[in-house]
Amino acid sequence: MRTTVGIIGGGPAGLLLARLLHRAGIDCVVLESRDRAYVERRQRAGILEQGTVDVLRECGAGGRLDREGLPHQGIELRFDGRGHRVDFPSATGGKSVTVYAQTEIVKDLIALQLEEPGAPPLLFEAEALAIEKPDSAAPVIRFRHQGREQTLSCDYVAGCDGFHGIARRAIPADRVRTFEHTYPYSWLGVLADVAPSCEELIYARHERGFALHSMRSPHVSRLYLQVPGGTDPDDWSHDRIWDELATRFALDGDWTLERGPITATSVTPMRSFVQEPMRHGRLFLAGDAAHIVPPTGAKGLNLAVSDVVTMARALIHHQETGSAELLDGYSRTCLRRVWQAERFSYFMTDTLHRRPDESPFEDRERIARLERIASSPTASAELAENYVGLPLS
Amino acid sequence: MRTTVGIIGGGPAGLLLARLLHRAGIDCVVLESRDRAYVERRQRAGILEQGTVDVLRECGAGGRLDREGLPHQGIELRFDGRGHRVDFPSATGGKSVTVYAQTEIVKDLIALQLEEPGAPPLLFEAEALAIEKPDSAAPVIRFRHQGREQTLSCDYVAGCDGFHGIARRAIPADRVRTFEHTYPYSWLGVLADVAPSCEELIYARHERGFALHSMRSPHVSRLYLQVPGGTDPDDWSHDRIWDELATRFALDGDWTLERGPITATSVTPMRSFVQEPMRHGRLFLAGDAAHIVPPTGAKGLNLAVSDVVTMARALIHHQETGSAELLDGYSRTCLRRVWQAERFSYFMTDTLHRRPDESPFEDRERIARLERIASSPTASAELAENYVGLPLS
Repeated sequence: MRTTVGIIGGGPAGLLLARLLHRAGIDCVVLESRDRAYVERRQRAGILEQGTVDVLRECGAGGRLDREGLPHQGIELRFDGRGHRVDFPSATGGKSVTVYAQTEIVKDLIALQLEEPGAPPLLFEAEALAIEKPDSAAPVIRFRHQGREQTLSCDYVAGCDGFHGIARRAIPADRVRTFEHTYPYSWLGVLADVAPSCEELIYARHERGFALHSMRSPHVSRLYLQVPGGTDPDDWSHDRIWDELATRFALDGDWTLERGPITATSVTPMRSFVQEPMRHGRLFLAGDAAHIVPPTGAKGLNLAVSDVVTMARALIHHQETGSAELLDGYSRTCLRRVWQAERFSYFMTDTLHRRPDESPFEDRERIARLERIASSPTASAELAENYVGLPLS
Repeated sequence: MRTTVGIIGGGPAGLLLARLLHRAGIDCVVLESRDRAYVERRQRAGILEQGTVDVLRECGAGGRLDREGLPHQGIELRFDGRGHRVDFPSATGGKSVTVYAQTEIVKDLIALQLEEPGAPPLLFEAEALAIEKPDSAAPVIRFRHQGREQTLSCDYVAGCDGFHGIARRAIPADRVRTFEHTYPYSWLGVLADVAPSCEELIYARHERGFALHSMRSPHVSRLYLQVPGGTDPDDWSHDRIWDELATRFALDGDWTLERGPITATSVTPMRSFVQEPMRHGRLFLAGDAAHIVPPTGAKGLNLAVSDVVTMARALIHHQETGSAELLDGYSRTCLRRVWQAERFSYFMTDTLHRRPDESPFEDRERIARLERIASSPTASAELAENYVGLPLS
């Protein structure tokens, strides 16, 4: 097989890249190691920046998103038994975010790609094994599909296969630098069949730890609890989960956390990771293949989108003008925005969680940050601008 | 002896409090353990917030400050070989700071107090030994002066005697909570007889550590280098100091650090400290007696001023109305502003220094903070608002 851009990974980054390239008349093939049902079930992020929504709409993937997505104009910070709302549109010239699960975006993009005549091939259960000669003019992806090894010859390879994929490891170790930070706590994530107890997300800092109230739809709540690293979700009975959530969200005033059947629990470790550069020859990394953020800032999916938009733009520019300038600048352009998202995610995580070894001074200093945001339009705007998403550079 | 307010400590806090009370017709006595020459020589901070300048002017202590103080409309952040200016007036509705050494304020306040007829007594070499019955209606300060022990009976005691003074220790240990953070580095401070190489302060983050270019006057430079904790200033030859400063301030463009005779060096450890509450019965703590900030945010002197302004206001309000409401709220009112200054000082310190155990991720995250400030009017305004000083509550 041969194509212009070989895309490894059929998550939101790979699928969106395929769509952007196809609409510009650039050939590509998507290789996804899992089957369709698995990919469409993966629970991931759910907060879309304004820019992410705009991109999905512009490429014709915004239909169901516009019907079912929940526009959010702000978030609540809850600490010391009080709630404080951060308003987005007033601080950002009208921007907001949309709650729409990543897994729904994946379903939408897969349906479009499989149903539209002439859309690029999307191979499920096609496991990429190696990227050969990524720094040559003719890289090759070796993959296993339908029981046999095959090759995909490309002009370019897009590594959209996540942190555990092969793409980032295809760059020689002596050409990369990695940056890593591990947080001494995890998130216990809960999916529950109950209407959310709030209209907007609540980020709570409590002396017992962080809690987040989010939602997937008007009927499904998504809740998170800070738990010690290495926690087994089976150690948490559903009653214990609800009790702990109620404690951490408690307000001095009246507020009730609605309980309902819990349909899924999982534990997510918290990590920050960046691999530089994001390009090696004709191999370009995007999304989790190049960087991880802790979920507190809701930036992971949005960064993957801005990476592939930057990549598509550079490939289209090259096709139209013959200039490799944007391709050559890909890593630098992406990393500027990546590091800003890393910074914001670190700030949100560090401000809202309690470290096991946190000193009383550090506790008060974090509360002072939240009080500043609650009392200063400038500090509140700084949070809002980062949350709705910094502009693409 | 007897007075209404017994003030322990003749630094800027105690002297300014005496002046504010005297002008409102409230009796007080200042006890300073050192002699006048020593007090007038103490090198301390030099950056006055707009509010501090306003207070000094309003109480008639702004004459020489207005003639000799250097108004500064911004600071420079220098990192990655580039400089970025943060403009204060445009971000804060016209506010700025003034460079005028604390030791000059002390000289001005001492001269006023000793020369003005009817001004409150200011006793030098009067060492406070104990505060008796601070929680009664008639506290007593025991002190040694001119070779003998004496007592000062007061209605109120103002503890303005710094971190090492007796006032904060006069509060029973089971009534206080302390918050402390120690930074794993110190500042090597240098006073040099050379015109400053810049018009405004330069805060530099360099891979070898933090450096600060400040000034005392148009002819005297004040420079600081981050050094390991426990550094002996004698280990640093003057040539080594200038070479290291030149390295850390180096710009990609043209810029020269002017060198000159170094007249003093000293090493300052970096610490954050808060003792709560700031009041016990009729004993009120102000300034370093209750809290310490690392000098990076230039907040120590300014916090002492806002404490004594709050204290004077409460005592005057009580005298005029008989209401103890402001006195009762003293600690809470001060601590709100104290914790905001602690937060800002921690941010500036943590962002600009390099920890010995800093990871590559943490290094990049700090640089991303500086890049955000350099590229975002909102983030720049947030720094400016804090630097020129938050309003008194």
